[in-house]
Amino acid sequence: MNKILFSEHIPPKVGILPEGPHNRLSDVAGITVGQVTLNQGDIQTGVTVIYPHQQDLFLNKVAAGASVINGFGKSIGLIQLEELGTIETPIALSNTFAVPILAQAQIRQAFTQHPQIGREWSTVNPLVLECNDGVLNDIQALAIQESHYTEACNCQQTHIEQGSVGAGRGMRSFGLKGGIGTASRYVTFKKDYLIGALVLSNFGALPYLHIQGHAIGQKIEALRQVEAHTDKGSIIIILATDAPLDARQLKRLSMRAAAGLARTGSNYGHGSGDIAVAFSTTNRIPHDASQSIPQPSFIHETALNDFFNAAAEATEQAIINALWYATEIKGRNNYHCPTLKYYLHQLGLIG
Amino acid sequence: MNKILFSEHIPPKVGILPEGPHNRLSDVAGITVGQVTLNQGDIQTGVTVIYPHQQDLFLNKVAAGASVINGFGKSIGLIQLEELGTIETPIALSNTFAVPILAQAQIRQAFTQHPQIGREWSTVNPLVLECNDGVLNDIQALAIQESHYTEACNCQQTHIEQGSVGAGRGMRSFGLKGGIGTASRYVTFKKDYLIGALVLSNFGALPYLHIQGHAIGQKIEALRQVEAHTDKGSIIIILATDAPLDARQLKRLSMRAAAGLARTGSNYGHGSGDIAVAFSTTNRIPHDASQSIPQPSFIHETALNDFFNAAAEATEQAIINALWYATEIKGRNNYHCPTLKYYLHQLGLIG
Amino acid sequence: MNKILFSEHIPPKVGILPEGPHNRLSDVAGITVGQVTLNQGDIQTGVTVIYPHQQDLFLNKVAAGASVINGFGKSIGLIQLEELGTIETPIALSNTFAVPILAQAQIRQAFTQHPQIGREWSTVNPLVLECNDGVLNDIQALAIQESHYTEACNCQQTHIEQGSVGAGRGMRSFGLKGGIGTASRYVTFKKDYLIGALVLSNFGALPYLHIQGHAIGQKIEALRQVEAHTDKGSIIIILATDAPLDARQLKRLSMRAAAGLARTGSNYGHGSGDIAVAFSTTNRIPHDASQSIPQPSFIHETALNDFFNAAAEATEQAIINALWYATEIKGRNNYHCPTLKYYLHQLGLIG
Amino acid sequence: MNKILFSEHIPPKVGILPEGPHNRLSDVAGITVGQVTLNQGDIQTGVTVIYPHQQDLFLNKVAAGASVINGFGKSIGLIQLEELGTIETPIALSNTFAVPILAQAQIRQAFTQHPQIGREWSTVNPLVLECNDGVLNDIQALAIQESHYTEACNCQQTHIEQGSVGAGRGMRSFGLKGGIGTASRYVTFKKDYLIGALVLSNFGALPYLHIQGHAIGQKIEALRQVEAHTDKGSIIIILATDAPLDARQLKRLSMRAAAGLARTGSNYGHGSGDIAVAFSTTNRIPHDASQSIPQPSFIHETALNDFFNAAAEATEQAIINALWYATEIKGRNNYHCPTLKYYLHQLGLIG
Repeated sequence: MNKILFSEHIPPKVGILPEGPHNRLSDVAGITVGQVTLNQGDIQTGVTVIYPHQQDLFLNKVAAGASVINGFGKSIGLIQLEELGTIETPIALSNTFAVPILAQAQIRQAFTQHPQIGREWSTVNPLVLECNDGVLNDIQALAIQESHYTEACNCQQTHIEQGSVGAGRGMRSFGLKGGIGTASRYVTFKKDYLIGALVLSNFGALPYLHIQGHAIGQKIEALRQVEAHTDKGSIIIILATDAPLDARQLKRLSMRAAAGLARTGSNYGHGSGDIAVAFSTTNRIPHDASQSIPQPSFIHETALNDFFNAAAEATEQAIINALWYATEIKGRNNYHCPTLKYYLHQLGLIG
Repeated sequence: MNKILFSEHIPPKVGILPEGPHNRLSDVAGITVGQVTLNQGDIQTGVTVIYPHQQDLFLNKVAAGASVINGFGKSIGLIQLEELGTIETPIALSNTFAVPILAQAQIRQAFTQHPQIGREWSTVNPLVLECNDGVLNDIQALAIQESHYTEACNCQQTHIEQGSVGAGRGMRSFGLKGGIGTASRYVTFKKDYLIGALVLSNFGALPYLHIQGHAIGQKIEALRQVEAHTDKGSIIIILATDAPLDARQLKRLSMRAAAGLARTGSNYGHGSGDIAVAFSTTNRIPHDASQSIPQPSFIHETALNDFFNAAAEATEQAIINALWYATEIKGRNNYHCPTLKYYLHQLGLIG
Repeated sequence: MNKILFSEHIPPKVGILPEGPHNRLSDVAGITVGQVTLNQGDIQTGVTVIYPHQQDLFLNKVAAGASVINGFGKSIGLIQLEELGTIETPIALSNTFAVPILAQAQIRQAFTQHPQIGREWSTVNPLVLECNDGVLNDIQALAIQESHYTEACNCQQTHIEQGSVGAGRGMRSFGLKGGIGTASRYVTFKKDYLIGALVLSNFGALPYLHIQGHAIGQKIEALRQVEAHTDKGSIIIILATDAPLDARQLKRLSMRAAAGLARTGSNYGHGSGDIAVAFSTTNRIPHDASQSIPQPSFIHETALNDFFNAAAEATEQAIINALWYATEIKGRNNYHCPTLKYYLHQLGLIG
Repeated sequence: MNKILFSEHIPPKVGILPEGPHNRLSDVAGITVGQVTLNQGDIQTGVTVIYPHQQDLFLNKVAAGASVINGFGKSIGLIQLEELGTIETPIALSNTFAVPILAQAQIRQAFTQHPQIGREWSTVNPLVLECNDGVLNDIQALAIQESHYTEACNCQQTHIEQGSVGAGRGMRSFGLKGGIGTASRYVTFKKDYLIGALVLSNFGALPYLHIQGHAIGQKIEALRQVEAHTDKGSIIIILATDAPLDARQLKRLSMRAAAGLARTGSNYGHGSGDIAVAFSTTNRIPHDASQSIPQPSFIHETALNDFFNAAAEATEQAIINALWYATEIKGRNNYHCPTLKYYLHQLGLIG
């Protein structure tokens, strides 16, 4: 019999820093998230769309940086993000084979809003990131349509549902049900700032799973006595802050997602596309060159340490939350993927 | 009156090394190219598809490397190429907004050929590169369809048409008609090897154009007395070799495209997505882990110098050829983009 | 009263994979390590030198890759390592300001052995990595001399002393005494391979320290009631394997050090130069271009997962070992830096 | 008989943009350069030191970025420059094996000026770049001493001598005498800015040399009928501007050095360490975190194109100038390396 480690009603908190007001990405003011979930037999997938702010993103780009922790991934948009240090569309997450249709939806959305795009103006850089939900979802059905993107744009809210929803619908993590998770942390440097994280969690080999340092994965594995499987999922990590960081600093920040990720039990598996994107809602770059560039009071480099800690902690927490809130679904070929909470109950670790 | 510099019948040769047998990418044995051209009023665009070899590419990947010379581009597939050093689909080129539909076509093609993809096997990494043909082509019409990709796959041949064809249909380069160009060079190291280049040329500001070192762009500009425009196109450069180079060496090779590019008059303009991809047809990596990895006799690093020279020269030549073979088209809004040869005649530089 | 967690006689094992025969870097056949320790009042520093194999390294380079996890560091040699994927000198570790003198020693050693270097042959690429031991050592005294490098080369052995020795003499980690640590793990793919790690550990903020998932750092902090300090040290991680990996694969492998590092409690602090270098003892590249390049039977990419796990585990273990074996020293200005074991005893966690 | 192409009294101008007031790096206000030349029999080498401004550099760092065009080089300092985007010491150039002693001189200079360095404060990041002058100079003599660095710091001026001086003393370029060259260009965006370049030119294979597009190298080769040699030198390119660019933009700017370099005839040879560093004199970052970070009015990204053109042109011009001003020296073993001007006279191309 195990000692009760976790409370039924609240996911285990990781790290040291204080949680943001609602412990979610959208604690960073201006951010909203919309999710569309497809639950139709073998089709168990969805779309999650993040708006960095509520103004015109193409005209008011946000400063951004990214880290490719392991590049076994099929995202679109990171090459230009790396070069220019900006994001100019909502960020879309979905399954691997939905990247093209979502990129097309972003393109169409952009030139609906700005008919100059690709003509008088430069083109638009779609930004779509993905994990492979092919075990639980009939990924070859290419079920995601452009309309699902529009729908996800149209249901934006600050509330973020977690677990088996949106892009997370068919995801698995550590051989358990994965999906969408979110968290946030406060950082104080002269004033309070927030770092928010949202993950699409689909990675991990069960024996490596750790929660608050406990080797939960091994306990579950002992219980279920199935064969260990390799880490071949992926994880997408979106970080946001209201601190005025520039693109280089945001790239550094995004790298700290790798630390939080590792603490849940990842070694950045060969087949796992592990990608982190970080943006600042307060460092905005106008598309129009005739506008003056706002001069935020940048954070001194030596003050970044606490932001780094917050990024790592929010990432780790968001992954735990994705597992925690995931609900069991009936997937492709009637495949059932049990949840973390199911096993925590079985093991008597929750109460 | 200018001195006659060029012959009517053959594009000016650049560089020192000898040309391959047909001076084209497909001089590298096994490579074929298929092109589909759309010429319907305001729709002036197309697709170019390159097969690195004629076997199953997913099962027999080719070693590859890439250089992002300037990352203002919307390609898909480079993140995984950088991580794993392989190409596993045919390479597709088209206009910027056709990337999604072509990636989708590649995905569908892959799982038609291998229904295990995304299920028992890992997913497939589409590889689509692009330039913006929005001046001559109604890029917002999203005219490219999945069927155009299939069509381009179905008309593969070793002959490569150059100029205003395929993906090059609506491209402009140095304010002149651009498009598809190709070239090759021999390299001798113990035996003869070939380096081939194929470019989708859509970059350049006229005053910077140089051919064989001659400031042709300035002569044309003096003649036509139009306002200088900025370099905001793009160029995609595909390099291939039959030398057994590994992924790291191919990445080094791809970087030499930047030298050939510069000699035509590029400074890697801010708005220009300048991307080079290099692959080896003889260094193949089986998808199936149970198969042994072929051990080609790699080229010693110190012998790479001539390969680098060949890569730069083939790139420069391919760009010149794209301009040389480009034919005038009637583009969107009846926009006419004159050709290099038109001006060379006007200037009396050709004879 | 705390529960006894650890045994007095053996450092806590982390991870899942089996330890190598002696749980040290030199379990990988051919590797030796020599260390010189300076213990003279305010001078508390040293040199650690690693030989990847026992033949002429310049003539028989080893394939290598590196990851700059956080680049606040003053190493020399990584630029060329990244370009060419080889190591051609012994690897030297020391304090930050000893990098120049050690690089000079490596240069002098190289042209003593090969008078052609820098003349008929190309130059040699020194490889020196560092952490700042300025709290415990009078780093401004520049106490390390070229002769210390020679001495460390002359006392090479397979036995590796750990803790407050060699380059680790004056290092601190998590506010505790740090230093040199080593570990190894077995990987089985068709046959048994070994992954070894050696760290120079000088990073970490105490509250973040975790051992086997236990928040030991917070327990110590509660006990000692000193002010938290920031993570501004550094860590150098050297990984080695007898598996025939190529430079690209070794770069991927080196990145997994970041996972092991994170699990001990690092978020890759702003001021921490966190750098990992990985090499293969069996993938050797001859300097002489006329020699044929050996064609090892490379490991298939999909088999890398276990190597990645081993790299992360060996790194984490080596860090724990560095803390575990560190002995208290009297440093500069009589500064005493307590050891992990001292506090584990105080806390009754060891028995 | 050839047509006279060049004037005896002035190096051929390349590019389109107007030259700065003195056509040198130090046209950018605040920059000074000091050079020490060693001319003692087989010792033909030297040191060139650049001060980005005249205040305390450690306390007032300059924003900087770098591009490793080809990483066959032994510089120190680029890893931290890449991570933090700043330069905090004068920039030192010399021969390959002088890097350590110059780094040590920079370290000693830094803690003479700030005894807190490495103790209360973080360590200092030396920045030394190099080329191999081993043909003309007895590089194994390690003739450069710390005192030469100090001397070069003490003779700072805005005047920059070019050719066979300072670090350029023993350098060769295209098989001709190379060395130090400098140039500058104006860029106008709302107001006038300057881009300056200084090169240490030691690269190139003669047949590839082009000046103003003329294949001068082939003409010289025909004349002297010596065996072609490979490109195995190196080039260091320092770019500076008074425009307030940030570190990411400066990294982009530094990459344009590759274009200017290519136009003189480089394909970034395998054995050539081709490295470009760019800094902004007006974007300064205080060391002291309590100081507010100055908020320069950053240049809009779309305006960078002209800066890119200027960077490429200034680089190309500086290389031509290095060749142009180089004087013949008697090197190691009485080796004579003829100058460009000698051959231009022989060829009757100058008048």
